[in-house]
Amino acid sequence: MSSKRSVGVLLFDDFEVLDVFGPLEMYGMSPEAFDIFLVAEEAGVVASRQGPKSVVDHKTADGHQYDILFVPGGTGTRREVSNTRLLDWIATQSQQAELVTSVCTGSALLAKAGVLDGVQATTNKMAYEWVTAQGQKVNWVKQARWVEDGKFFTSSGVSAGMDMSLAIISRLLGEAEAEKTAQWAEYEWHRDAGHDPFAAVHGLI
Amino acid sequence: MSSKRSVGVLLFDDFEVLDVFGPLEMYGMSPEAFDIFLVAEEAGVVASRQGPKSVVDHKTADGHQYDILFVPGGTGTRREVSNTRLLDWIATQSQQAELVTSVCTGSALLAKAGVLDGVQATTNKMAYEWVTAQGQKVNWVKQARWVEDGKFFTSSGVSAGMDMSLAIISRLLGEAEAEKTAQWAEYEWHRDAGHDPFAAVHGLI
Repeated sequence: MSSKRSVGVLLFDDFEVLDVFGPLEMYGMSPEAFDIFLVAEEAGVVASRQGPKSVVDHKTADGHQYDILFVPGGTGTRREVSNTRLLDWIATQSQQAELVTSVCTGSALLAKAGVLDGVQATTNKMAYEWVTAQGQKVNWVKQARWVEDGKFFTSSGVSAGMDMSLAIISRLLGEAEAEKTAQWAEYEWHRDAGHDPFAAVHGLI
Repeated sequence: MSSKRSVGVLLFDDFEVLDVFGPLEMYGMSPEAFDIFLVAEEAGVVASRQGPKSVVDHKTADGHQYDILFVPGGTGTRREVSNTRLLDWIATQSQQAELVTSVCTGSALLAKAGVLDGVQATTNKMAYEWVTAQGQKVNWVKQARWVEDGKFFTSSGVSAGMDMSLAIISRLLGEAEAEKTAQWAEYEWHRDAGHDPFAAVHGLI
């Protein structure tokens, strides 16, 4: 049995490229620790909002259980919040996953699937009103780069996913590994989960 | 005729995901200004160093000329510096392109293709020695987040490509558009091209 953790990245049409590949850059610096799988409802390819297409590794119906469930955002979330089959898959995965994570408006899908009820969470600051309306029982946090609450990690918009994934690596593999990852990526990691200038930029506070 | 600029992103096996998708996130915020194409020698799919695969839009042999040539880095560059057919394509594209850009070790391919001779350029700070050996006539800059020299933009490692692409958007579309792009991506843009703490982290200065 592999000692690696599997990262299941949910893709849907019009996903946001940096939501996905920012965190995957960070996980990908520790190939001995993480196996990355792109997961979608259908086999084949999925087109990002920006145009470039990614190849699906697993279908949701394949029945894999992921250690880390990773739900990105993008304009496609506006459609997928009405996809009850996909929301059911998210809910089922979330029960067994060691960590449940989202970037940007990906938290709308977690919220609509009901897995964030009673959980502290955050999301994209420009889409805040729409996302938070998807989960009335979620304890939404207006100003945060990311929020950790037990096994749930939710980040603010797009680039915040990189800071959050470094925090995840820090929890799972230690702070030295996260620090090394950031240095290899020449990334100035924002370690303070509460550092969120964009809540003010986008008029939330 | 389209008034959009075409961005031709050169892919090869073992490209680095954030090198590619960090900048594409930024260009993708202005779909009215940029058309993005993933370009490779063969049709089909190309696997990143991290595992996820991308779908090729154009083959290099298709004969398209791109307004912005974009060469990412990744461990695959170690192989491609010996690929004379690919280096010839880079040299030919560079002659007509409005801008020639690289992220991370992508500058090794530009250097080996000869297009950076007499040009100021930078690269990844961990791979500095290897990259700079690919172009003895390049005016390499040890400490820089990115370097602009005429139509050439070269960035430091991985995440530096995001700062550089915002500088490119600023030059092409104005600083307000670059600022808006960064805010939408909730990205704290490093506007100072000389800001490079990683030159010291990786022992170059």
